[in-house]
Amino acid sequence: MTSMFSDRIADVPKSFIREILKTTLNENVISFAGGLPNRDLFPIREIKEACNKVLDLFGAEILQYSTSEGYEPLREWISKRYRDHKGITVDKNNILITTGSQQGLDLIGKTLINEGDHVAIEEPGYLGAIQAFSLYRPVFEPILMDFNGLRTDSLKPALEKAKIKLLYTVPNFQNPSGVSHTDQNREEVARLLMGNGTLLIEDDPYGELRFSGERRRSYFDRLPGMTILLGSFSKIFVPSFRIGWIVAPDNLMEKLLIAKQASDLHTNYLAQRVLYQYLSDNDIDLHIRRICEKYRSQKNAMVSAIKRYFPEQVRCSNPDGGMFLWAILPEGIGARAVFDEAIKDNVAFVPGDPFYVRPIKANTMRLNFSCVDEATIETGILKLGAILKRFAV
Amino acid sequence: MTSMFSDRIADVPKSFIREILKTTLNENVISFAGGLPNRDLFPIREIKEACNKVLDLFGAEILQYSTSEGYEPLREWISKRYRDHKGITVDKNNILITTGSQQGLDLIGKTLINEGDHVAIEEPGYLGAIQAFSLYRPVFEPILMDFNGLRTDSLKPALEKAKIKLLYTVPNFQNPSGVSHTDQNREEVARLLMGNGTLLIEDDPYGELRFSGERRRSYFDRLPGMTILLGSFSKIFVPSFRIGWIVAPDNLMEKLLIAKQASDLHTNYLAQRVLYQYLSDNDIDLHIRRICEKYRSQKNAMVSAIKRYFPEQVRCSNPDGGMFLWAILPEGIGARAVFDEAIKDNVAFVPGDPFYVRPIKANTMRLNFSCVDEATIETGILKLGAILKRFAV
Repeated sequence: MTSMFSDRIADVPKSFIREILKTTLNENVISFAGGLPNRDLFPIREIKEACNKVLDLFGAEILQYSTSEGYEPLREWISKRYRDHKGITVDKNNILITTGSQQGLDLIGKTLINEGDHVAIEEPGYLGAIQAFSLYRPVFEPILMDFNGLRTDSLKPALEKAKIKLLYTVPNFQNPSGVSHTDQNREEVARLLMGNGTLLIEDDPYGELRFSGERRRSYFDRLPGMTILLGSFSKIFVPSFRIGWIVAPDNLMEKLLIAKQASDLHTNYLAQRVLYQYLSDNDIDLHIRRICEKYRSQKNAMVSAIKRYFPEQVRCSNPDGGMFLWAILPEGIGARAVFDEAIKDNVAFVPGDPFYVRPIKANTMRLNFSCVDEATIETGILKLGAILKRFAV
Repeated sequence: MTSMFSDRIADVPKSFIREILKTTLNENVISFAGGLPNRDLFPIREIKEACNKVLDLFGAEILQYSTSEGYEPLREWISKRYRDHKGITVDKNNILITTGSQQGLDLIGKTLINEGDHVAIEEPGYLGAIQAFSLYRPVFEPILMDFNGLRTDSLKPALEKAKIKLLYTVPNFQNPSGVSHTDQNREEVARLLMGNGTLLIEDDPYGELRFSGERRRSYFDRLPGMTILLGSFSKIFVPSFRIGWIVAPDNLMEKLLIAKQASDLHTNYLAQRVLYQYLSDNDIDLHIRRICEKYRSQKNAMVSAIKRYFPEQVRCSNPDGGMFLWAILPEGIGARAVFDEAIKDNVAFVPGDPFYVRPIKANTMRLNFSCVDEATIETGILKLGAILKRFAV
């Protein structure tokens, strides 16, 4: 049957990160490898209340098939939040509810990418986007990053070399690096893109998880009509519901809706109604503040331990939000080799390799802090520091 | 932005059936147009109990990200049901939980269809499959149906003409026609396919909704290793949960899993756990019997009214299960013209047109009986019969 596979899937390798995560299932392992929100903060009681309420009030209605666009009041809620919290005007009819923002990425690939189209993506970049877009067989153009955001000395030649159809970016607390684009960086990137027809995909699952510094202006504002926004409830509510959204202009929305119908008809409707009830009956901002307080404390514990235990040649990001920290080892030291040693000592992280669209022996490490308590962070970073020192860095 | 669309989406028209369904939102309209299960039969109380139980027992665990394969005990349940109810042996590792069986169709398209591949599909065929596969740009080969199933005099020349990669069929109580393949038909179809490398996609959302006659042997048994099964909980439980599954051999499963990850990471996990709890604590067979009793009564009411009110030149299917009846008008009478008249008189159905992969002025009508009570069926069919008589049939 092998010969029957489509070209788009035939040469996709098994997920490296899945193999990594398997090694961390052992409960003795201190894992900085995950990418999960902290489950201690999930509003279980409130979700239960919302489930009971919607089933009591609406019964069969919320168990039936529903519309592909998603529950209208939920789309209105998102529209209102953009207005009140980000100063962005988005009509509810330009919001499509998706089965997680991962589906948003797939729908963008489906509606926009032809084989051979040039798609620019941050390097390092979000693995889920690389995977989703890969299946539509674009030519990836990696755009280098630094701790300020996208490097314009990498973006400019890429734009000059080829017609870039899409540029994918996570400008706030990026996965994997934790980096946020500075205001100046955003301005420069927007200036380079202006008028050249490239669509910017602004994926923002972590933007609400800011625990220091000021909110930065969205690309949506800077490149009106040329920016597609992706959002998610996975990091501020719960991931298992798989609810995210896309914001897109009218003509693209029409196509996205066709693709959505063909992909899964609509997103779990009971879940949309439970979420909306939760949002109506609870103070989500209070909830987000609690998440931010916890993550700030965890991030601070990690940064502090890194300062004490990592060799000083290792450079690390110090994010103002999100769930990840990024470590850059001196050139020539492969993070996979470090991983192989670390896992023997029961500590895990994700070597940078899968976050690059080019095959690379990465000297970078993604460290997740949201799922590990402060004392364990201390122990784990101490161990990791000792291992890094053995690599003579 | 229009010029940016991918080729696969650029020429897909707006869904005709959506436009039809909009006209039926008026509550004065008697609608045989829908394709929904009867919401009066949804187990609301049991779902509420299951929600509370899983949230009390498992808490945060079921709100976190989960595996792309789906909840293992749910896959075991499906495996056991195949064994006990259909005599089919399927390992749980060959079952992938999907976001409705619509997603199963999309994943099959993603992993198997290259542009230009020949995909055979029943005519009339399931619209959701046409839509999902269309985006991967196959050449559709329509295989004619009659009231016994797939016409072998249509299948044979199609197989001789081109290398058919996939044959898509709903062999039990098909949507839109209500037709089930007879045992003899299955044997003949299987004989034609045997050894020629065509994969058969056996989509079976309605198979459990049999209210008369005997269960027929699955193609999965007749074409081992060459049949992919699709299943769904939408018709025997509730649709809003969007839970279905694919059964596929190991090497395809590996590719489907990659495509699943790229599409939405995993299916709503709370919903999977609630469904499994429901299945553990309730008698699903009793529930299915109740659905079948209701649908049998509705189908009988429709068949009986049709006999009395439709002109005798209209030929109708008389299904042993499922949710649909199919009416064939004399040649030359367009069902869309009949629809236009019917909607003026506040009665609706779906004209056959969207169920054909070739543009056609269809003389066929899909009539749904699961959502309309017996008295209303009588009134609606009476009206429809009067309109059909005006068309001089």
